[in-house]
Amino acid sequence: MKARTVLPPQNPHWPSRREECGVFGVFGHPEAAKLTYFGLYALQHRGQESAGITTSDGCHIYDYKHMGLVSEVFKEDTLQGLRGHLAIGHVRYSTTGSSRLANAQPFVVLHKNEYYGIAHNGNLVNAARLRRELEREGTIFQSTMDTEVIVHLLARRLRYGLEEALADALAQVEGAYSLVLCTRDTLIGARDPRGFRPLCLGQMNGSYVLSSETCALDLIEASYIRDVEPGEIVVIDRNGLRSIKALEPVPSAFCIFEFIYFARPDSTIFGQNVYSCRKRLGHLMARENSIEADFVMPFPDSGTYAALGYSEESGIPLEMGVIRNHYVGRTFIQPSQTMRDFSVRIKLNPVREILKGKRVIIVEDSIIRGTTTRTRIKTLREAGAREVHMVVSCPPHRHPCPYGIDFSTKGELIAAQHTVEEIRAFIGLDSLSYLSLEGLLKGAGATPQAHPYCLACFTGNYPVAFHEEVRKDCFE
Amino acid sequence: MKARTVLPPQNPHWPSRREECGVFGVFGHPEAAKLTYFGLYALQHRGQESAGITTSDGCHIYDYKHMGLVSEVFKEDTLQGLRGHLAIGHVRYSTTGSSRLANAQPFVVLHKNEYYGIAHNGNLVNAARLRRELEREGTIFQSTMDTEVIVHLLARRLRYGLEEALADALAQVEGAYSLVLCTRDTLIGARDPRGFRPLCLGQMNGSYVLSSETCALDLIEASYIRDVEPGEIVVIDRNGLRSIKALEPVPSAFCIFEFIYFARPDSTIFGQNVYSCRKRLGHLMARENSIEADFVMPFPDSGTYAALGYSEESGIPLEMGVIRNHYVGRTFIQPSQTMRDFSVRIKLNPVREILKGKRVIIVEDSIIRGTTTRTRIKTLREAGAREVHMVVSCPPHRHPCPYGIDFSTKGELIAAQHTVEEIRAFIGLDSLSYLSLEGLLKGAGATPQAHPYCLACFTGNYPVAFHEEVRKDCFE
Amino acid sequence: MKARTVLPPQNPHWPSRREECGVFGVFGHPEAAKLTYFGLYALQHRGQESAGITTSDGCHIYDYKHMGLVSEVFKEDTLQGLRGHLAIGHVRYSTTGSSRLANAQPFVVLHKNEYYGIAHNGNLVNAARLRRELEREGTIFQSTMDTEVIVHLLARRLRYGLEEALADALAQVEGAYSLVLCTRDTLIGARDPRGFRPLCLGQMNGSYVLSSETCALDLIEASYIRDVEPGEIVVIDRNGLRSIKALEPVPSAFCIFEFIYFARPDSTIFGQNVYSCRKRLGHLMARENSIEADFVMPFPDSGTYAALGYSEESGIPLEMGVIRNHYVGRTFIQPSQTMRDFSVRIKLNPVREILKGKRVIIVEDSIIRGTTTRTRIKTLREAGAREVHMVVSCPPHRHPCPYGIDFSTKGELIAAQHTVEEIRAFIGLDSLSYLSLEGLLKGAGATPQAHPYCLACFTGNYPVAFHEEVRKDCFE
Amino acid sequence: MKARTVLPPQNPHWPSRREECGVFGVFGHPEAAKLTYFGLYALQHRGQESAGITTSDGCHIYDYKHMGLVSEVFKEDTLQGLRGHLAIGHVRYSTTGSSRLANAQPFVVLHKNEYYGIAHNGNLVNAARLRRELEREGTIFQSTMDTEVIVHLLARRLRYGLEEALADALAQVEGAYSLVLCTRDTLIGARDPRGFRPLCLGQMNGSYVLSSETCALDLIEASYIRDVEPGEIVVIDRNGLRSIKALEPVPSAFCIFEFIYFARPDSTIFGQNVYSCRKRLGHLMARENSIEADFVMPFPDSGTYAALGYSEESGIPLEMGVIRNHYVGRTFIQPSQTMRDFSVRIKLNPVREILKGKRVIIVEDSIIRGTTTRTRIKTLREAGAREVHMVVSCPPHRHPCPYGIDFSTKGELIAAQHTVEEIRAFIGLDSLSYLSLEGLLKGAGATPQAHPYCLACFTGNYPVAFHEEVRKDCFE
Repeated sequence: MKARTVLPPQNPHWPSRREECGVFGVFGHPEAAKLTYFGLYALQHRGQESAGITTSDGCHIYDYKHMGLVSEVFKEDTLQGLRGHLAIGHVRYSTTGSSRLANAQPFVVLHKNEYYGIAHNGNLVNAARLRRELEREGTIFQSTMDTEVIVHLLARRLRYGLEEALADALAQVEGAYSLVLCTRDTLIGARDPRGFRPLCLGQMNGSYVLSSETCALDLIEASYIRDVEPGEIVVIDRNGLRSIKALEPVPSAFCIFEFIYFARPDSTIFGQNVYSCRKRLGHLMARENSIEADFVMPFPDSGTYAALGYSEESGIPLEMGVIRNHYVGRTFIQPSQTMRDFSVRIKLNPVREILKGKRVIIVEDSIIRGTTTRTRIKTLREAGAREVHMVVSCPPHRHPCPYGIDFSTKGELIAAQHTVEEIRAFIGLDSLSYLSLEGLLKGAGATPQAHPYCLACFTGNYPVAFHEEVRKDCFE
Repeated sequence: MKARTVLPPQNPHWPSRREECGVFGVFGHPEAAKLTYFGLYALQHRGQESAGITTSDGCHIYDYKHMGLVSEVFKEDTLQGLRGHLAIGHVRYSTTGSSRLANAQPFVVLHKNEYYGIAHNGNLVNAARLRRELEREGTIFQSTMDTEVIVHLLARRLRYGLEEALADALAQVEGAYSLVLCTRDTLIGARDPRGFRPLCLGQMNGSYVLSSETCALDLIEASYIRDVEPGEIVVIDRNGLRSIKALEPVPSAFCIFEFIYFARPDSTIFGQNVYSCRKRLGHLMARENSIEADFVMPFPDSGTYAALGYSEESGIPLEMGVIRNHYVGRTFIQPSQTMRDFSVRIKLNPVREILKGKRVIIVEDSIIRGTTTRTRIKTLREAGAREVHMVVSCPPHRHPCPYGIDFSTKGELIAAQHTVEEIRAFIGLDSLSYLSLEGLLKGAGATPQAHPYCLACFTGNYPVAFHEEVRKDCFE
Repeated sequence: MKARTVLPPQNPHWPSRREECGVFGVFGHPEAAKLTYFGLYALQHRGQESAGITTSDGCHIYDYKHMGLVSEVFKEDTLQGLRGHLAIGHVRYSTTGSSRLANAQPFVVLHKNEYYGIAHNGNLVNAARLRRELEREGTIFQSTMDTEVIVHLLARRLRYGLEEALADALAQVEGAYSLVLCTRDTLIGARDPRGFRPLCLGQMNGSYVLSSETCALDLIEASYIRDVEPGEIVVIDRNGLRSIKALEPVPSAFCIFEFIYFARPDSTIFGQNVYSCRKRLGHLMARENSIEADFVMPFPDSGTYAALGYSEESGIPLEMGVIRNHYVGRTFIQPSQTMRDFSVRIKLNPVREILKGKRVIIVEDSIIRGTTTRTRIKTLREAGAREVHMVVSCPPHRHPCPYGIDFSTKGELIAAQHTVEEIRAFIGLDSLSYLSLEGLLKGAGATPQAHPYCLACFTGNYPVAFHEEVRKDCFE
Repeated sequence: MKARTVLPPQNPHWPSRREECGVFGVFGHPEAAKLTYFGLYALQHRGQESAGITTSDGCHIYDYKHMGLVSEVFKEDTLQGLRGHLAIGHVRYSTTGSSRLANAQPFVVLHKNEYYGIAHNGNLVNAARLRRELEREGTIFQSTMDTEVIVHLLARRLRYGLEEALADALAQVEGAYSLVLCTRDTLIGARDPRGFRPLCLGQMNGSYVLSSETCALDLIEASYIRDVEPGEIVVIDRNGLRSIKALEPVPSAFCIFEFIYFARPDSTIFGQNVYSCRKRLGHLMARENSIEADFVMPFPDSGTYAALGYSEESGIPLEMGVIRNHYVGRTFIQPSQTMRDFSVRIKLNPVREILKGKRVIIVEDSIIRGTTTRTRIKTLREAGAREVHMVVSCPPHRHPCPYGIDFSTKGELIAAQHTVEEIRAFIGLDSLSYLSLEGLLKGAGATPQAHPYCLACFTGNYPVAFHEEVRKDCFE
């Protein structure tokens, strides 16, 4: 095991922006930990760095979290130790660089003989300022997570009761959060007033379930009731479910990138099925373009569904021009220096016989930095592809996201600095087309005039103003 | 770690039939172990139970093998300990039941100050008889592998020289084998006279490479030279490559199931690209059938390429009606008993929105026992599919394979006992169609009148007679 | 790994009393982590449950802690990741029951862009009250350690500067503490005003070292300078060492049990060598008794040095009547139920030939609950010992310790409930003698009239009054 | 895990001489594996490199072996998998250099539907020649152990029945062996005709037990029956115990070094208690010398019992001048280069206060190479010892042992090349005295005229002539 490197304290921007995560919660089931385990299993695509579960049997609190995949972190005996009818869980995104167990969730604290466990998806934009204010009063922090700020704010108001205290605490934080929270006898779900990240409510045999995405409800055979609404707090205890709407209503700002890339295709989020949405994006790309080619292909599995749609609409056949090796571990031994482009080829091997002499359209979901795409295109050309065109199922990413999607900083976003033609040349394509903003909104079932989405990464119009420090962190 | 259970000695059929494996070898490269590691990585689909590498620096022999995936078994420091310019490697199929390290390969023995390492893909059919004869002379065995028989036969003839001794030893064994073998200064490849299993020869910067499939050559950027021919022994040492053809020529019997299911789609085996072959099988299924449906779909990733072909030829659109969870580990905690069909759903989740009310054609590569297929079809119906048809890209599997493909015994093959109509009813399909034998051969580029394939699992015509004990083991 | 059980919140006595620990610190050495590793190695007898090291290179903070022995927790690569010239470390005692990583130390927190690491040996007696007060103001806690209380008190005063803040914080806590504390550029040592636990200061090549015992200085070849004095705070940074004496002076209360049992015999603590002190206790026991016997023996290694002294003074020969198995791991598989007294015999096997028919005097350091001693005596009798006498190198333990030695509660102390004669009968001895209090003090170089020791466990006179909750926890 | 390095094949001396081991066997107990686990636990001092157990339930054979201590290798679930009423076990000595799992024991082979498990303590002297003969007939080997030779010889004669075959096989091997062997329904113990290594027979509740030393019988509460006699084969099955004496009787040659160093002090071997024997050696040393000194001390724990005897006889007090750290793991991180003599000090720390200004007699069991002793003496002098004398409880080791004690080669034995005065000077002693051969024999209960011991390492008179290759290996 490696020593934990605590982040440099000279960096004033405590909150890590790498906050793509999945959250899950169950109330009222004798096997709450097991259901949460399976729920996290289904949400694993939202975070592969760490996994954690906190449970309660009404009397004691049990928790376990560790770096790794859900299937690696939890073993039969660990799950058995997580007793009780109430559980919350969390998976966290794999960030480059250090792995920090101290930042794994759920985050559990003690206060006046009560335990509070919290799991958070999203990113706050005023956490650094709140943190400084709390520290001025003598508060100490255990982690660099913005989630910890919420907990401290909550603790200071608990004399007014848990619900009031939580509503008050959330009224002070700004940004994106879909939260599940537990005490010894209560499960709480909360979503920020703009609803950046998804959070849904389900039911199975009288138990309540909270989940980032519906695919986790499917796996455990829970039925979907409804989304937790933007700005809503749902409190679940032995008296049932209460909905609290203490936060001022504001326009919604659902993260449209969840449709394009992040959510699982079999989930329904923000009222729409992700698979169908991606296929529609494929249709719309085909309508916006008319490239002549021998076949359409995705890089599996990212652009697969949009590619299906593109092929369907354009009539150009679909092929799987590269084969994904399903046995690639998350780490592998570095090859000798004479083996070029190895880390790309070990995952995706081009099928020479299919590509040789052909004109190919790649359907890609997005281009962030462009470097991986460039290497992939190179291997296609080496395998004999005659022409390589690319269509991308969204507009160029020109602006960083302070609400929880890790696009790297503005400086690293290739489209922030370069024209489409420059990107095309850098990647080595014969042509490069992005879907229009209108197309994207249409695919997501809306129009430019009336839509509930956050489009900030394309337009730079940020629905929640953010603190100067976040600005510096993201933009410079 | 679990105790190893040595197999019951009252079972006279030592040789395990579960011999699907991948083999790899390198001669003349300073990083022979690392290349073999990557070669095995690419061949991982041929065996996930254990992995092993044996190397030589011309003076010492080094080896390491363990249960697990290549990426789990080998770490940087293990690889660094495997010194030398010569290496052979092996991956072994995951069998149900006990995991036996003693049966992992390469198998290394000492004889007269020389080491012999051997890695074997295939299954011998007269191993039990040979073993009894050897034991009568006082030979002791360390494992239950038929590979060990080859080694003992070899050792008894070594006074005539290695090449002669190997040719003599192979003249006595019957059945399927693609072997790589090493001593301290020699790499040898050998393939049985019928060529049941693939084995190819490649080259990179003056080094020779042997591999079960060409996809491993692609990964390390070696160029394909040719297949090791049926009945050929290739001997590679510092004097170059010598080909020995000491075995009597017989008609070829290439395993056609390698095309249908086993080999990786980006490989070229038996002179044909696997991806293209599978697509052709899809075309031929579409021509043999005319099912009306809303869409065609595979269970990813098994039938994907045949489904592409079926869709292309029939004009019926392709959809991905089930989503594969890429984070499913090889083991997972069992769900509570109230969660039905869980082990199927955790891997493949149906997309309700796509399936609801639709008529679906599933393209499947094969049906062995039918039980998993049945559960999958049930989840499709629960997700709302109106009609579910299935087309299979080969004829019914009616006969077990004694040459190294693990179909279970005759009693477990559903098509050995039941009509197509009975299978259809058992699985719960609206219709079930198998590709004809003519269609299969045509897809594999041949005709019923002239072809180089072993079709025994479909026809019961076994190209190599096998020992009564194997018969009992497979058929009763 | 097992799930962590967070302690039941209905127990109001957060602070665990099981606080025997070892602390170590280095300032100004390029291999600070490595020195700390070796220092903890030498202090391992003070705690085997967990080990941790926190370091700083003046800019970043690095830390690593885990359950297990020092040699298990730290590997070469972990140590290499712990960079910097400043380090503190901690080993923690193995408690029965749950192993809680959250309670491992050093405890690291963030506050206003600075990191504070703290390692603590001792036990506070007003932590529960302070904790309640802090919680009333909204403070949340991450652990059940009383150490965390010090950190919160410190954080609230940091605007007055670190040294002032620490002095203020320590003025509020009562009980036993020997602390090492670090920020990015400062190493601090502090000892409570009564000096319950040892803490010494050493030097090597211009670096300063803090350690619970001198045996750790010996190992790293540092020279002993002096003890950190009771009530003293030493602050070490690049300007050198400053001594702060901000706490009101009070009479010393050195834990005399450190001499009897806890400290390593090659250490010098409270100004005296432990080995010599134990031998003197042996002499004094021999003078206070005149038992006729064939030989004197210890149970290795606890009473070895007192037994040497007893034999020397009495002229009765020393034998090693039981052999200690040095390969006994910390856990072992339970024997079958037919194997009686196994867990005693696996550690200490009687030498039948030596014991048979003999009159034996056992020299023991202390009797806490009496149950293990009883079983050991039984095995001696089964091995043939004719008479078994026991002399104990201190008076009967009649009172629990709230300052950091885990004697179990009053109810479990056999001498709290029973007369010496009753204890003798329970254990199954021919005679049982305890050293007198005068003898103990004389052995420790003092007199009943004038001594610097805490004798509370023998006398019930507690030098620091303690909170009612601690009283309940210890006494009922 | 590290790659296994197979030994260089150019070395013709296959049999490793590092064969100090412990063996154990049980027949007729429902928890045979568990008893064997505890037996090996008690024999752990005879080998710390690897541990293994093979069991049988009369029908199947189960086995498990791995590198490491008994407590590390076997866990509850591993033991539970080792079913049956019959078990054999083995611990192997830690050799420097590579760890080879292939050389771990018991060694299990298959032959004609029967399994043979064998565990061996001792070293054969004609194994290399026998191996060459077997290889000439085509036999292949899996390991470099001489034990494997016995198995091959056995297999070739099995048509005459197991007992006859074993007697025949043993008649061909020369050297030292104490063996336990099992088939599915039989436990066998065998000891070479000279009885170099101990092997005893015990009983518990109707079950038979075989063990290298009696300390293992004590632990499991079995009663000692008798030693397996030199040249005896005991066969234990459901019909009871049969003794076979098929080997020609020859004079005994018990390894006297088992008394001096190797066996556990609480064992009785060769008819004598080891502890008492060591004390007698101490008495005799004191009679042969008259050194003036302040105290006698051992390096714990090697010379402890002889030191007790020396002190008793000479009247010079005993002290423990160095303290052994019981938490030293088998591996530790290397200290910085500025920390001298660290690997000695981490195990044994001198007690300055005891040593300062004193004249000290060290009682040591033996001096092999002298380098470790030298460093230890240096640390004593640095701690202030004024005079350091050493008495050794046997004569100088001048000749290597081909029968299973690893003294390194003749070239490494300091006494083979140097006079006592030269050794004294090298180690840095004020005086050095060895016990005389007469003294040693007297301590072991015999006389130079009539004794059953092998004294070859002192005298060079080897009771069994050995093969030229062994001679080269040991002497050059």
